[in-house]
Amino acid sequence: MSLVIVGSVAFDDITSPSGSVKGVYGGAATYCSLAASYFTDVRVVAVVGDDFTSEYEAIFKKRGIDTRGIERSAGKTFRWGGTYTDNLAEAKTDFTELNVFEKFSPQMPKAYEDSQYLFLANIQPTLQANVRHNMNGVRLTGCDTMNYWIQRTRPELVETLKLVDVLLINDTETKMLANEKNLPRAAQKVLAMGPQALVVKHGEYGATIFFREGAFGIGRHPFRAPTLPLDEVKDPTGAGDSFAGGFMGYLASQQELNREVLKRALFYGGVMGSFAVERFGPERLQHLTREEIDARFQIFRELTHLE
Amino acid sequence: MSLVIVGSVAFDDITSPSGSVKGVYGGAATYCSLAASYFTDVRVVAVVGDDFTSEYEAIFKKRGIDTRGIERSAGKTFRWGGTYTDNLAEAKTDFTELNVFEKFSPQMPKAYEDSQYLFLANIQPTLQANVRHNMNGVRLTGCDTMNYWIQRTRPELVETLKLVDVLLINDTETKMLANEKNLPRAAQKVLAMGPQALVVKHGEYGATIFFREGAFGIGRHPFRAPTLPLDEVKDPTGAGDSFAGGFMGYLASQQELNREVLKRALFYGGVMGSFAVERFGPERLQHLTREEIDARFQIFRELTHLE
Repeated sequence: MSLVIVGSVAFDDITSPSGSVKGVYGGAATYCSLAASYFTDVRVVAVVGDDFTSEYEAIFKKRGIDTRGIERSAGKTFRWGGTYTDNLAEAKTDFTELNVFEKFSPQMPKAYEDSQYLFLANIQPTLQANVRHNMNGVRLTGCDTMNYWIQRTRPELVETLKLVDVLLINDTETKMLANEKNLPRAAQKVLAMGPQALVVKHGEYGATIFFREGAFGIGRHPFRAPTLPLDEVKDPTGAGDSFAGGFMGYLASQQELNREVLKRALFYGGVMGSFAVERFGPERLQHLTREEIDARFQIFRELTHLE
Repeated sequence: MSLVIVGSVAFDDITSPSGSVKGVYGGAATYCSLAASYFTDVRVVAVVGDDFTSEYEAIFKKRGIDTRGIERSAGKTFRWGGTYTDNLAEAKTDFTELNVFEKFSPQMPKAYEDSQYLFLANIQPTLQANVRHNMNGVRLTGCDTMNYWIQRTRPELVETLKLVDVLLINDTETKMLANEKNLPRAAQKVLAMGPQALVVKHGEYGATIFFREGAFGIGRHPFRAPTLPLDEVKDPTGAGDSFAGGFMGYLASQQELNREVLKRALFYGGVMGSFAVERFGPERLQHLTREEIDARFQIFRELTHLE
């Protein structure tokens, strides 16, 4: 089934202990779409500037991603610069140039309207809500957000969360959103805001999915997927977006939406995140095969599997 | 088979967001012995002062723990005070009064000499090495240490590690010991110092066991056990020692030492740690049943188990 992904396309300057790159293709919609493209039909909605040449569009097209929702606007594409030091979990932002992204108002092509899955990457919450209101036929909506929106647009975010089925955020964001330091209690508070399920991403430790009582007809026991301890993390940029792409893409590829499918989706999220960080930018996500992905899925499964 | 545990007995003053207690029974040997006592015969080696009354010894005896290795010395038992604020992963030490522990020189009763498993809780590395040298019949030696010894007695610790089969430490200690920020690379460096296996404890995210190539005849793929996300952590004191007790106690209860046994031991470690933190002090570890322990083991297993 088709998955629409709404978010940013960007060019990033990234410095990590493994090196430094300038103007590398990035943005949440890029990482997420490429990751999801190994599982299902992907349709992207984003805004780009004059510097988004055909070579960048070709990266999407090679992965079969529908780019009719990419709006071209006069000016430059969103640019971001970040530095990772020893703590690879968090980037220090060196600069943010919103450029054409500042006026982003997601436009859904007619051809996308029959999509059954929707992922709202990290953009202003009211824009997320507007997209969701215009997609009444969707079966499941996933959503990301960040500390910036939690702190500055909490009322708008709370409204958006009422329209969302699965929220995917990290530990810090969960605790900030709930104003509660204990993770399981914070998770229950976030679920009370609307989502059926909350995926909390723990970086190198994997992710946990918490469910509302009765969500998807599967009860409320949480489930956790590990990630493989990696010998080298070159560039953590886009790991969370790639996780979301693997998670949403796998869900969209399945007929049933049951506990086992959600568990596997959580594993596939971790798998795609682990590929993303192996190279600077989304390079690793462009040339994978489903066999490589499933081989890593098996390694992740073995990592915690008791006979 | 019998497990000897060498470490501290203490009285602790603890403050956490859940409350405050004074003079509660504690120490690494206490938590570790109580946790291990649900799996195997435990023999403890420690030093206590005049304030260690029969009521405290009775806590060990009720769990069938052999206390002949507890040396009574004139003076006060080791006392420690710590405060946990929002970050329950780390205590701020309010005071340390070593008292009789300052001159601790572990004496192994004759009756303990046929023990097959040995756990060296967190004490000065040369004392650990001396104990190990006097226990030549042991089948497997586990060991803990901390940042204090890594920073101040590195040469002594390096010598001790040559005598150890399994080292159990946390992420920060692993990276500090290896002088390496990447966890899997740090783990390989620590394994090169001597241990066959390294258990890295991740606090609320569980633990990972790394193996030397060919260790225990099982290859070197790591294995990770999760912990249950808990609604309330009252007192993290002793969680790591309880983990070690569950891990070592389960190993000592098994005839075979293979990959599956080591995996299950890692799960049991997490299970015992999760019980310990539910109450102040080691209270929860005194009145468990094996059925309660195995029920939680199943919950932990389900937490990451794919069909």
